[in-house]
Amino acid sequence: MTPPDPVTPAALRAAARRMAGVVRRTPLLASPALDRIAGRPVWVKAECLQVTGSFKARGAWNALACLPAALRARGVLAVSSGNHGQGVAHAAARLGVPCTVLMPADAPAVKAQGVRAWGGQVVTFDRQAEDRDARAAALAAEAGLTLIRPFDDPAVIAGQGTVGIEIAAQTRAARFAPAEVLVCCGGGGLAAGIALALDGAAGQVRTVEPAGFDDMARSLAAGRRVANPSATGSICDAILTPMPGALTFPVLAARAGPGLTVSDDEALQAMALAFTHLRIVLEPGGAVALAAALFRPGGTGPVVAVASGGNVDPALFAEALRRHA
Amino acid sequence: MTPPDPVTPAALRAAARRMAGVVRRTPLLASPALDRIAGRPVWVKAECLQVTGSFKARGAWNALACLPAALRARGVLAVSSGNHGQGVAHAAARLGVPCTVLMPADAPAVKAQGVRAWGGQVVTFDRQAEDRDARAAALAAEAGLTLIRPFDDPAVIAGQGTVGIEIAAQTRAARFAPAEVLVCCGGGGLAAGIALALDGAAGQVRTVEPAGFDDMARSLAAGRRVANPSATGSICDAILTPMPGALTFPVLAARAGPGLTVSDDEALQAMALAFTHLRIVLEPGGAVALAAALFRPGGTGPVVAVASGGNVDPALFAEALRRHA
Repeated sequence: MTPPDPVTPAALRAAARRMAGVVRRTPLLASPALDRIAGRPVWVKAECLQVTGSFKARGAWNALACLPAALRARGVLAVSSGNHGQGVAHAAARLGVPCTVLMPADAPAVKAQGVRAWGGQVVTFDRQAEDRDARAAALAAEAGLTLIRPFDDPAVIAGQGTVGIEIAAQTRAARFAPAEVLVCCGGGGLAAGIALALDGAAGQVRTVEPAGFDDMARSLAAGRRVANPSATGSICDAILTPMPGALTFPVLAARAGPGLTVSDDEALQAMALAFTHLRIVLEPGGAVALAAALFRPGGTGPVVAVASGGNVDPALFAEALRRHA
Repeated sequence: MTPPDPVTPAALRAAARRMAGVVRRTPLLASPALDRIAGRPVWVKAECLQVTGSFKARGAWNALACLPAALRARGVLAVSSGNHGQGVAHAAARLGVPCTVLMPADAPAVKAQGVRAWGGQVVTFDRQAEDRDARAAALAAEAGLTLIRPFDDPAVIAGQGTVGIEIAAQTRAARFAPAEVLVCCGGGGLAAGIALALDGAAGQVRTVEPAGFDDMARSLAAGRRVANPSATGSICDAILTPMPGALTFPVLAARAGPGLTVSDDEALQAMALAFTHLRIVLEPGGAVALAAALFRPGGTGPVVAVASGGNVDPALFAEALRRHA
């Protein structure tokens, strides 16, 4: 039996209203050069231009805005490779509440800097040797912090879903209906939120993951949640979640098409093409949906690729340009 | 005696109406990290996200849209280091008319590729050895092409001025009035158009040029048009115009504050900071206004910097990241 949706249409609309004046309505960009490569019209939803450099600012803001004031005042905690952490730090700064972010020690330096720039306190852990959840529980208990989950939280899913509400409005304004909406996928919060917001034809939303970390694609195929065999080994740091979310998976199982995967090098290639033709900065995890739009066969109808983030260390960006631009 | 303005408010409004569905309303971006560096709120008008990667798409479109159909049908010619050429090629493609672009042989490869991607024909000349104007005249005569001037044309100035109309609307929506609007300056078409569109306090608009190519700053100080001593020697290829325009100079003499200059290295630094904090790609000439906002003392009021373009060869962009990110 399919469980009820974690987010109602009313909750999505409320989240969209909360975004006003806090997060940006990001543009939908296109270039004939990308259309030629893909063999179909490609539109890029540039969430790298979001206030913290990724869509995560949306879900974090909605979650903190919905948190009871008494809990909020004691402070919040995020466990994050960096984009969710920046989103929570940004939301906390807007509300004037303390924020701690537990980050893997090997997270991109630019992301730790981003958390600190929003006034968040960074605490690191060793991805191989330490129990992340135990560290997080200890940190939360110590200071009475509320953990803001990265995806398996209805308020977070609703916040990310506002990307879908904007895509619907922007594609209507540009007078086309997307045949496919490709969305990068870690735990599935963004993809589930967009699928709920669009609520379009079955299979319109498709998840994109790095090869070897395609837990969502395999879970969708199996009809139940399965985990990734390993936790590290891709440059797409933002989306290396071990397993689909308990709330996000049923949403996507009911609505998404088969999951797609791309290689790390295809992600780098998409970064270089976005640099040249759209003049935007993408991080590898933020470029996988564009990579799938460009390098995986699709229909002939227009495709929207969500470019989910642009927080990338300069050396890795330069490497993408060296190899592919 | 001050000559009459080359562009009326009605012509500006008509240009703005013509932009709908053809060029993008680009976002106004900000980051607290940039505010801290500048010591005042900095807003960036991201024209690098414009359809051809620079604001030049606006003036070119307005000029071609205003050109009598009989002339237009015979084709158009642009002489350009690349951004104006791409703008004219884009406009010509939208109207289905032939387009030739005469470019210096040492223009960035990415710009020649951009012209060709829009279906324009690229003809190169040697900046040191050849008479550009004679080549242009011969090309135009041969095929009956109409020359679309890069800045000294009322229709072009009105088109570029639509950037100012958007800045006015966007700053109103964000509830602030810019103390300064910094604009890169080659021939002065963008700066003059914005000054006419804003028509604000005297000195609100200020031009920014590369050191050694500050013909506008020196002309504003002298009260008459003076030329640059040399034509090459800065990485800011987009804005190395020899002398202010006959139409643009009086507009700026009547409205702009003293001109600013920045070094090539400051432009590279602004490119690196825009990469990290705004996730946009700027070319050197497109980054000079941001560089001035960040590195030149100003008041404490909010400043808008127009980031005019993002068509940059990858090796130069990687160099900016290597030095400064």
